[in-house]
Amino acid sequence: MVALMPRVTEAHLAARRQQILEAAWRCFARNGFHGTSMQDIFEESGLSAGAIYRYFPGKIDLVQATAESVTGDIAEVFDLIDAIEPVPDPPATFRLVIERIVSAIADGEVDRSRIAVHVWSEALREPQVGVLAREVGRAVRDRWVPIAARWRAAGHMPADSDPAEVARLMYGLMVGFVLQRQLLGDITPAQYLDGFSSLFRGGEQS
Amino acid sequence: MVALMPRVTEAHLAARRQQILEAAWRCFARNGFHGTSMQDIFEESGLSAGAIYRYFPGKIDLVQATAESVTGDIAEVFDLIDAIEPVPDPPATFRLVIERIVSAIADGEVDRSRIAVHVWSEALREPQVGVLAREVGRAVRDRWVPIAARWRAAGHMPADSDPAEVARLMYGLMVGFVLQRQLLGDITPAQYLDGFSSLFRGGEQS
Repeated sequence: MVALMPRVTEAHLAARRQQILEAAWRCFARNGFHGTSMQDIFEESGLSAGAIYRYFPGKIDLVQATAESVTGDIAEVFDLIDAIEPVPDPPATFRLVIERIVSAIADGEVDRSRIAVHVWSEALREPQVGVLAREVGRAVRDRWVPIAARWRAAGHMPADSDPAEVARLMYGLMVGFVLQRQLLGDITPAQYLDGFSSLFRGGEQS
Repeated sequence: MVALMPRVTEAHLAARRQQILEAAWRCFARNGFHGTSMQDIFEESGLSAGAIYRYFPGKIDLVQATAESVTGDIAEVFDLIDAIEPVPDPPATFRLVIERIVSAIADGEVDRSRIAVHVWSEALREPQVGVLAREVGRAVRDRWVPIAARWRAAGHMPADSDPAEVARLMYGLMVGFVLQRQLLGDITPAQYLDGFSSLFRGGEQS
């Protein structure tokens, strides 16, 4: 019993932390970081201020933890792709990224991709959010650079293509999917992937 | 003199209306629609409440006029492309759209593409903004459908490609450019177009 106690406590701490985070995510998805107060999070979680402050001393700590969680989930998807040999062609790679990111970020307890749309706006108004949002955005975009280099080496891209520019395009496609999904609400991964495939294969025709 | 009077007055009215709109755009670009009050617009424009209410009875009228102005400028770009025979290939078309939209929407007196980022977030929280933002978003995306159909007819897209899905991708690329420009601030049309061209020509290699 004594030997088991710390493990049980650790699991309990982690579960409680996750419970608070998910309550915060529901608030952030509804109203953004700026529009959410600690009071909103107390109410959403049903926990006392004291219970929450033990894990997250301030709202910025919740914002930071949210950024880390999203970045971590996205990194897992890219780690998977980096490990596939040979590199899948662009449509197959994009399929992996879109499908897995939707299932990791959007299909969970809370659709965290909805938070992203609020964060983009807040990043332009609040310097502290701006620093975090740019960090996450650049980290995601940078993951496309080695993939584009591998596409080029495998003959899926012209020899004169610049992986850094291809990364800009792929990142643009990712956020363009998130925005359409949240704003227009009428897009499935399959539709977007069909469009991508048409564009990529289009080069064969002309 | 008498014959000229109405014309002079009309020009004056239009100039005054534009002056108010541009003051509102500076406020909207900084703080979004929600974060801007009519008081902010009085101060920004240096005009009295009475002078402004004559043109725009409420903030929603300014929001509506902003949406119409952006939609109008974007429509002009697409009208131009619709008139080109034969249809330019996808990289040439995308170049026209990105370069002209940047010069019409972003390089003017106020960068209205910055307003877009705030609007996306507000659209998820405020139903009235949501209706307007979805209208603009769908109108822009729909303009890509006939272009994609012409690409397919001209052999720039596979025969089995669906113009509606290609439109989703092209719209995603447009908003992905706007977001990167505002959030990461380190992207030029030329870089993005290089990435697009590499992806499109990539299909020739594999």
